[in-house]
Amino acid sequence: MSALELDETHDPERVSWIEVAPESDFPIQNLPFGIFSTERRDPRIGVAIGDRILDLRAIAEAGHLDEVADRAMLCGERLNELMAAGRPVWRALRGRLSDLLRVGGARALRDMPDAFCSFGEARMHLPARIGDYIDFYSSLEHATNLGRLFRPTGDPLLPNWRWIPIGYHGRSATIVPSGTPIRRPCGQRKSPEAEAPVFAPSRRLDIELEIGFFAGPGTALGERIPGERVREHIFGSVLVNDWSARDIQSWEYQPLGPFLGKSFATTISPWVVTMDALEPFRVAGPVQIPAPLPYLQRHDPENFSIALSVRLSSASMRERGCDPSTISRTSFASMYWSQAQQLTHAASNGATIRPGDLFASGTISGALPGSQGSLIELTENGAHPLELPDGEKRAFLEDGDEVTLLARCEREGFRSIGFGAAQGRVMPAESDRFA
Amino acid sequence: MSALELDETHDPERVSWIEVAPESDFPIQNLPFGIFSTERRDPRIGVAIGDRILDLRAIAEAGHLDEVADRAMLCGERLNELMAAGRPVWRALRGRLSDLLRVGGARALRDMPDAFCSFGEARMHLPARIGDYIDFYSSLEHATNLGRLFRPTGDPLLPNWRWIPIGYHGRSATIVPSGTPIRRPCGQRKSPEAEAPVFAPSRRLDIELEIGFFAGPGTALGERIPGERVREHIFGSVLVNDWSARDIQSWEYQPLGPFLGKSFATTISPWVVTMDALEPFRVAGPVQIPAPLPYLQRHDPENFSIALSVRLSSASMRERGCDPSTISRTSFASMYWSQAQQLTHAASNGATIRPGDLFASGTISGALPGSQGSLIELTENGAHPLELPDGEKRAFLEDGDEVTLLARCEREGFRSIGFGAAQGRVMPAESDRFA
Repeated sequence: MSALELDETHDPERVSWIEVAPESDFPIQNLPFGIFSTERRDPRIGVAIGDRILDLRAIAEAGHLDEVADRAMLCGERLNELMAAGRPVWRALRGRLSDLLRVGGARALRDMPDAFCSFGEARMHLPARIGDYIDFYSSLEHATNLGRLFRPTGDPLLPNWRWIPIGYHGRSATIVPSGTPIRRPCGQRKSPEAEAPVFAPSRRLDIELEIGFFAGPGTALGERIPGERVREHIFGSVLVNDWSARDIQSWEYQPLGPFLGKSFATTISPWVVTMDALEPFRVAGPVQIPAPLPYLQRHDPENFSIALSVRLSSASMRERGCDPSTISRTSFASMYWSQAQQLTHAASNGATIRPGDLFASGTISGALPGSQGSLIELTENGAHPLELPDGEKRAFLEDGDEVTLLARCEREGFRSIGFGAAQGRVMPAESDRFA
Repeated sequence: MSALELDETHDPERVSWIEVAPESDFPIQNLPFGIFSTERRDPRIGVAIGDRILDLRAIAEAGHLDEVADRAMLCGERLNELMAAGRPVWRALRGRLSDLLRVGGARALRDMPDAFCSFGEARMHLPARIGDYIDFYSSLEHATNLGRLFRPTGDPLLPNWRWIPIGYHGRSATIVPSGTPIRRPCGQRKSPEAEAPVFAPSRRLDIELEIGFFAGPGTALGERIPGERVREHIFGSVLVNDWSARDIQSWEYQPLGPFLGKSFATTISPWVVTMDALEPFRVAGPVQIPAPLPYLQRHDPENFSIALSVRLSSASMRERGCDPSTISRTSFASMYWSQAQQLTHAASNGATIRPGDLFASGTISGALPGSQGSLIELTENGAHPLELPDGEKRAFLEDGDEVTLLARCEREGFRSIGFGAAQGRVMPAESDRFA
């Protein structure tokens, strides 16, 4: 493995003068960016540290970041300008923030208690204006499982899958931050024996556990991104729940791909964990056979060792005071196609990439039972429903179910970091008055 | 047929005091909106009249539109705010502009020669910030032709096609205004007999002749658009050329649909012809069997009688002074799924619709020879190349080829109107240095 690009911001001995609980997702080694507002602050950039948020606009306006970044890019309502600024700026800003927050570092923020607020005071917003949203299909196990369910008579893995990081464009307008209620969609579904479809609320509402990344500086029309420079083009990652209505999806998706079975909502976690924060957790991905074409060849260890889990709580569980049930545990480390390969491929035809474009991995599924990132896989298309702690069964989601995605990076010799949560609760479908 | 919603702006006797040539696309009955700039004007809203552009910002700032619309929505750099304003505002603005420009109407603009510029002085820009872009597949003839070519062993029309206005999300970042050069994309292609794909410039570059519409006020997450109100949600239409690399598309599109074979560029015409201008050309669409589900039932004559043509000129033709060759003539009138059905369907799962979202029809093809909207259909997958006036043959596009889409509405008793052009010239692929 080539050397990781580590610096003093990754030092596990570094601690913040802001109190950080040992199990916190947000120690000083993380420093993720998000957009928050409070009663007296309009939406602006914040940095998570422990269970507090540092108001980046406040400290930029006080001049404490002038040496590393242009004030304007730190004082907007979204992260797009910072994403556009490029990796040297991202790294300089990270170094400066780490120094401002560390014990023994610069003391400028010690006299600015108003530059912080608690998580409880803040409302989180989308981190970026998302121009285009691409969803990939990069887990070998997931693609195989889905192929078996959707095309039972054919080869589950299509001939192009090992050559191309397969993906499609999703709907950017319906990407919502964690906590946004998810209304059960209506749509067409048709059972194999029925003569005609019906338009009705989905009965097979599912989740997809994914990790997405935000593009950095981007490209102009006609440009490509060579594999050896793709690192400069990825700003950071978030959790993604690609809510999926399986009954709508299976009836509509031929031949142009998923559409209304996916476009009703996509939840993301609000804190963007930078690729610099993820650097210690970089690992080699699985061997790729056949070897990818030259433009898709790997240049670094391009995968990331990120442990993922999915929690579910039903309305009944919450009423009875049951803890959420962990229904899946898996890892991002073994994804077949890496984020770098995904971006290189998406730009390989010269399509414009804009700062803030979101690229999701596709469902992250492992090979072992209980390591799949969707209910359709975990329950084998509903044949083996999950049993919840209070005795309820779940083939697919019921109204009132709340799903929480979590992610955590751990490695010997490094401070663990996490992603926070991507959470959403299912609301009943709108009445069928237009049906 | 129910009555058309006509008013005095559609009066064929109405003429402008601005000179308009008899064959002009832009008589006073049209009044399309676009975004233009000149040497001394930054991008702003304009209205085409004859071969001149009325500077909407200039006349709004002079107070001449205060009775019909908020100044701010007329003084921006894109049409999104006007699109968001809704049909009563659109109609009032159209009525006022018609009155300001007609012989015998309000005289306010007679003393403002600076409020006009010529087409030759102006550079045209994208009319809107396009949030999401959906491309449908709504021509029965096109879907049948493509199905036969891409799935030669199966039923060309899949079982869902007559129930669902099939569509997918495209890339909004690469939508470009008419005149933008189109670089031939590189990508993976694989011939059936080859063991592995290659990454190389596309050899089967094609066009798709389409009409797209821009969404009006839009919807919030979870809302639907009932069929009887969909008219209030469509602002206007443009020509769309959905450039397609057939070799990339055929290798990549299973199972998630078109991706890099389409995302490299989409050209639109710069003038948005409002649905009010198109009102006289409203006609009933083809009978739909089976009858659509209730939420998709038609409420008006929902189709539009728009004659379309595709012109091609090669570099060699231009050198020899040949006129462009018309390679296809077809009509929008017989599209199976209407724009109203497309939008109702896209919003039927509660997905957010934003003002300025673009919805394209899919390739418009008729049943007769020479009425197909793509080369793959016109040449039967390259088997029968077109012959150009200078003797060249064309199965797919060559570098230097220039394609122009045109559209025109004609109806007995009404003044004809047109769309202007969506034009693009093919540039050679970028060198393969990253391949």
